[in-house]
Amino acid sequence: MGQNGAVEALRWIDPPEGPAVALLDQTRLPDDEVTLVCRDVPALVAAIKILAVRGAPLLGIAGGYGVALAAAIGADVASAADVLAHARPTAVNLGWAARRVLAAHIAGGASGALTEAHTIAAEEAEASAKMGEHGLALVPDDARVLTHCNTGALAAGGEGTALAVVVAAHRAGRLKHLWVDETRPLLQGARLTAYEAQRHGIPYAVLPDNAAGALFAAGEVDLVIVGADRIARDRSVANKVGTYPLAVLAHHHDVPFVVVAPTSTIDPDARTGADIPIEQRDAAEVTSVAGRRTSPEGSPAYNPAFDVTPGDLVTAIVTERGVITRANGGNLGLPGGTRH
Amino acid sequence: MGQNGAVEALRWIDPPEGPAVALLDQTRLPDDEVTLVCRDVPALVAAIKILAVRGAPLLGIAGGYGVALAAAIGADVASAADVLAHARPTAVNLGWAARRVLAAHIAGGASGALTEAHTIAAEEAEASAKMGEHGLALVPDDARVLTHCNTGALAAGGEGTALAVVVAAHRAGRLKHLWVDETRPLLQGARLTAYEAQRHGIPYAVLPDNAAGALFAAGEVDLVIVGADRIARDRSVANKVGTYPLAVLAHHHDVPFVVVAPTSTIDPDARTGADIPIEQRDAAEVTSVAGRRTSPEGSPAYNPAFDVTPGDLVTAIVTERGVITRANGGNLGLPGGTRH
Repeated sequence: MGQNGAVEALRWIDPPEGPAVALLDQTRLPDDEVTLVCRDVPALVAAIKILAVRGAPLLGIAGGYGVALAAAIGADVASAADVLAHARPTAVNLGWAARRVLAAHIAGGASGALTEAHTIAAEEAEASAKMGEHGLALVPDDARVLTHCNTGALAAGGEGTALAVVVAAHRAGRLKHLWVDETRPLLQGARLTAYEAQRHGIPYAVLPDNAAGALFAAGEVDLVIVGADRIARDRSVANKVGTYPLAVLAHHHDVPFVVVAPTSTIDPDARTGADIPIEQRDAAEVTSVAGRRTSPEGSPAYNPAFDVTPGDLVTAIVTERGVITRANGGNLGLPGGTRH
Repeated sequence: MGQNGAVEALRWIDPPEGPAVALLDQTRLPDDEVTLVCRDVPALVAAIKILAVRGAPLLGIAGGYGVALAAAIGADVASAADVLAHARPTAVNLGWAARRVLAAHIAGGASGALTEAHTIAAEEAEASAKMGEHGLALVPDDARVLTHCNTGALAAGGEGTALAVVVAAHRAGRLKHLWVDETRPLLQGARLTAYEAQRHGIPYAVLPDNAAGALFAAGEVDLVIVGADRIARDRSVANKVGTYPLAVLAHHHDVPFVVVAPTSTIDPDARTGADIPIEQRDAAEVTSVAGRRTSPEGSPAYNPAFDVTPGDLVTAIVTERGVITRANGGNLGLPGGTRH
């Protein structure tokens, strides 16, 4: 537990206990706070694949430390960077951070790699604080905010992305209520966001993802705030599956839909949302819950980890550098519209 | 198991084994096929409250037999009708059927009550066949149909409501694929619709409710078909929570949104959707899954069992008497627009 109820999702361990990357195993939350100590890259990749560590910005931090770990233990750094970059396909931050630390290793060896990994972690923490500040300006008084998945300290540096804005609003006395989508199939909202909200003392309630419509219809949502796993230049946002239906509902009910993500999440190589690869995960995540089968034996399932929300449904993208709107944003990464 | 892979959700048992109402316990599906034998009204009401028997039309059948059971065992028939009518608040069919059998009891005693309960069951089975026929006309060739909750033989007489249309389309060689929303929190789609689809040999896949948006965006949905728990005179439809977001998505993607329900589901006393009471269920249904807690201890939850879809988002309502559209429907139950 860090300050102010925040959690510590990931940390580097120096010798003599390390070198290692220590993770709070998010698959065990909220019941158990178990630390996973990864002493080599395969262990870290396995942790990433099972979502013991997750959230695009935090994956970036993990990827950076993973390359530094390879350097520290004398493993093949280039192949470590490659394996980490592809451990999951959608979050662009993994490859971005791995390449940064790989370049630092080429220039400065193992110590240069570790310094760069620490720099990425520090930058993301600072970005979180800035996003909290910038995003706060978009939160009205007595706001009832709906969020999806987990975007707090368990998903990013510092206090997170979207949740950093929620926490800032709570501290400023501006948050009336946080609606937490449970976020099937892996329940990151019910398990992780509720866990963080409780520690921050934020008034909240968990809901089945499909109950959001009833909330909008009842006029109980003033603002939707979500994170992002990858943002294309046309402001399309890939984020946890279920984000796009919320954007359509928000549009239908004329409620602002705000995305909060560090600029490391923007992929200058993705021209549109169609350029973002979407991870398809195992059917068993849908057809069983908490280890118990919920569908008949042999039921096929559709299980995309993410969906893509077109830029025209996004009211604003809050980054550490400021707020991008339809009016000032243009095409991200293109002359005149770049925020890089 | 009935004919053609259909299941028998409820049956009356005559003496000497009865009188009793026998239910297939839907809370135990798909793992176990357990029959619950209700020998008095409190047992039947308890089964209704835990959703061992559910689905608006099937609740009507259950309510009718419940009043007949009270008559057969010499219990207070009027109070049985009252308790059954209020066992769950949203499905209008419960009260409608209980009142019908109560009236028959006044006129014809216990045997009159039982005859009326049998008549209701037979009418609902016949209505299901008619809905299948009428609805089939709305299904295009190679249709990829998305459905929500369970609307088959486990929810209504005969082969159900919305699922009867799907089964008719399958038999007519017109169904390419059935997308089955898992339907949190109680997973009636994953558990029950998948179970029925498998028995009918229908090609299907289960999905988290929040993944429907990605399906629409990918152009993988040609038609949404759902049931209803109560329909107001302005064609607003109360149905399982999560129906309204599907209607908004269908509207956004210009996909037809079809409701299938017997006329017993239309409430002439509900002028608009605002007149339909919505059942709020226990938080524990959301904060734990399959008996395991998924949110931190003490997490509050928002758990409405139903939501209301305004009539202007409903392309057509298929009943046993024909198809009601915006063009021919007017206000249901009002002069000129009545289908009663």
